[in-house]
Amino acid sequence: MIEISPENVSGFVVGEGCFYVESGFDKKYKLKHRIRPAFCIEVKAEDREILEAIRDILGCGKVYELDFGRYQGYQDKKWKPHVKYRVSNQADLIQKVVPFFEKYPLFGKKLEAFKVFKEILKGLSKGEQKTPQGLENLKKTANQLKTVNKKGI
Amino acid sequence: MIEISPENVSGFVVGEGCFYVESGFDKKYKLKHRIRPAFCIEVKAEDREILEAIRDILGCGKVYELDFGRYQGYQDKKWKPHVKYRVSNQADLIQKVVPFFEKYPLFGKKLEAFKVFKEILKGLSKGEQKTPQGLENLKKTANQLKTVNKKGI
Repeated sequence: MIEISPENVSGFVVGEGCFYVESGFDKKYKLKHRIRPAFCIEVKAEDREILEAIRDILGCGKVYELDFGRYQGYQDKKWKPHVKYRVSNQADLIQKVVPFFEKYPLFGKKLEAFKVFKEILKGLSKGEQKTPQGLENLKKTANQLKTVNKKGI
Repeated sequence: MIEISPENVSGFVVGEGCFYVESGFDKKYKLKHRIRPAFCIEVKAEDREILEAIRDILGCGKVYELDFGRYQGYQDKKWKPHVKYRVSNQADLIQKVVPFFEKYPLFGKKLEAFKVFKEILKGLSKGEQKTPQGLENLKKTANQLKTVNKKGI
């Protein structure tokens, strides 16, 4: 078993975690748009037990192997199998993930991302996604999160 | 100013830090081979203050901007400026970095790398690099560290 403290988790998540929102067309929704926040951490398979320890500390989410599919073309680039920890259940995000990182704070750019992420969760729990105006606001905040998370080498 | 606790540092270093050894020909040494251990963390420039906070906590090392040179060819791949924190002074590694991570332990694969790194520092402080047999042993251990650190996507 691996030994990790809550503050180790925050430090690790600043480097490796991601707070993001899937925002896009979905015909199942009244306004044909789905806003779905999620928290994830992806690492190489050899460090699977780190993710399992974090899942146990946060008391929610799942750890699973990543399908090779998304890595097509990477075979020649020393690709290694990866595992992912993911929480997308909204109640878990609101009741477990958010309070954890409020108690054991993040830092740097990741803290900014977390703050925007919380705003989105707050809007969703108020039902803002059900009105056109509310949905527009949520989409804007989701874009803001994308900007904070923006990738680069 | 950024707020980081020592356990945050350990967690962050598990994700982002690197314990490595430069091992190779160098005519300035009696046996024509240099073994130089170093600890570093590289992040995007926007998170420079994380590295400055870690430098202040560890009480050694330098934070500096990375030369664009090593990223030639990355310009089209959304390259962003990076900063690096690095400690290569052997006394600092032995008296500051190692005791810190013994007090606030690392975990996962990074803990393995750290253990091998400590062996190398121990060998160097005993002067093993000065005899052919000792140098051979150090080279082997340096290769072992390379294997633990082996890269992959």
